[in-house]
Amino acid sequence: MAEAPYRLVLLRHGESQWNEKNLFTGWVDVDLNEKGEKEAVRGGELLAAEGLLPDVLHTSLLRRAIRTAQIALDRADRHWIPVNRSWRLNERHYGALQGKDKAQTLAEFGEEQFMLWRRSYDTPPPPLPDGSEYSQANDPRYAELPADIRPRTECLKDVVHRMLPYWYDNIVPDLADGRTVLVTAHGNSLRALVKHLDDISDEDIAGLNIPTGIPLLYELDENFKPITKGGRYLDPAAAAAAIEAVKNQGKK
Amino acid sequence: MAEAPYRLVLLRHGESQWNEKNLFTGWVDVDLNEKGEKEAVRGGELLAAEGLLPDVLHTSLLRRAIRTAQIALDRADRHWIPVNRSWRLNERHYGALQGKDKAQTLAEFGEEQFMLWRRSYDTPPPPLPDGSEYSQANDPRYAELPADIRPRTECLKDVVHRMLPYWYDNIVPDLADGRTVLVTAHGNSLRALVKHLDDISDEDIAGLNIPTGIPLLYELDENFKPITKGGRYLDPAAAAAAIEAVKNQGKK
Repeated sequence: MAEAPYRLVLLRHGESQWNEKNLFTGWVDVDLNEKGEKEAVRGGELLAAEGLLPDVLHTSLLRRAIRTAQIALDRADRHWIPVNRSWRLNERHYGALQGKDKAQTLAEFGEEQFMLWRRSYDTPPPPLPDGSEYSQANDPRYAELPADIRPRTECLKDVVHRMLPYWYDNIVPDLADGRTVLVTAHGNSLRALVKHLDDISDEDIAGLNIPTGIPLLYELDENFKPITKGGRYLDPAAAAAAIEAVKNQGKK
Repeated sequence: MAEAPYRLVLLRHGESQWNEKNLFTGWVDVDLNEKGEKEAVRGGELLAAEGLLPDVLHTSLLRRAIRTAQIALDRADRHWIPVNRSWRLNERHYGALQGKDKAQTLAEFGEEQFMLWRRSYDTPPPPLPDGSEYSQANDPRYAELPADIRPRTECLKDVVHRMLPYWYDNIVPDLADGRTVLVTAHGNSLRALVKHLDDISDEDIAGLNIPTGIPLLYELDENFKPITKGGRYLDPAAAAAAIEAVKNQGKK
């Protein structure tokens, strides 16, 4: 076991084609748009400029996180590091909201219900029927995931519960080996991880947004807890501006 | 252990910036050029059209193979499969020839020496000095590879010897699990593997060229040997034409 501090870098994927269209995405496997690709390039440049060079990558099984990592690592000349992927790092499954327009959903269900689904800790949207075109029921990447664990909707609490085993079993061992770990994932899977790291309450996590494309560095102590709560964005000014923008999402 | 036949797909990376310039590349980490990116897209389309969907990827540590795999798998909607990388799948280390112009080298050393370096089984070029700008002595991706095993030049025989442990220890177990395995690598690391699979003699391997960007499928029996020698290119006509073109390389 290497000595603390351990270095963990979180990177939320850049803007996707459905972010742009203001649709709920969840587990639907949409690609980055052009802006998202540029954000990924910029993320890689920030890593390189800081000399913060990942030794190992962990991503979700979704294209927008996978490509963000590929683009950023290529730019940082770290395209060759080992790669690990897991559904446990996927975005929150948005249930029956997947594929729906956020503004329409807001108009249809009202602000209270809308915000409950988006930001409450333990209220999932209605489950997505397997027959939906946005279902993952027949997606080969989840073929080895039994139906009793494969989500059809999730609240953030569900994401915390399915993400944490991956943190303990797969990410912590890499940190313990002294590796700089890059986790490239999603708004809600990263919020789940940050909630755990920074001991954020079920109430307060509602107010936390993680901007896209800006690496967030956590230095961790011997218990794999942050030396400085909240970590440090490699571009703090851009992060602050982006956090504001995310807050206004859905109010198009 | 799953039952034979096992499915192995070999894919040589598309054209690189140095293929285009007619330079010896070896372990120098040059990128694909635009043609190479298109070849990778086409490789992915061939996999998808055949329904030959890889379950796991093995690549070298070099960008041109890594990006070929990323592009092809993205096109085949298999961007999410597990990834493994090893220096043992790298291109042959070309020693002191790395970075040199092929036509100039031919003119300088004559056809006999040139062909000996390029195609003999056991004559490596002179070693590359660690001080060379094309040396990998300080490359972080090989930091955990002790100097006594890190190549400074290689003949094809050396490649066979350093590649085979990876075949037995990392690729065969995936095949034995019943996974369709994609190996995205290089002219000489794939020649080394094909030499082993098809039991090609030290003499005859000189005449074997593997075209870029065209998936080559081997169905393997219970001993992980080909059911049909030579396997099957997914686009046989394009493969035949490309093999001719490779033969004329260096005679620019």
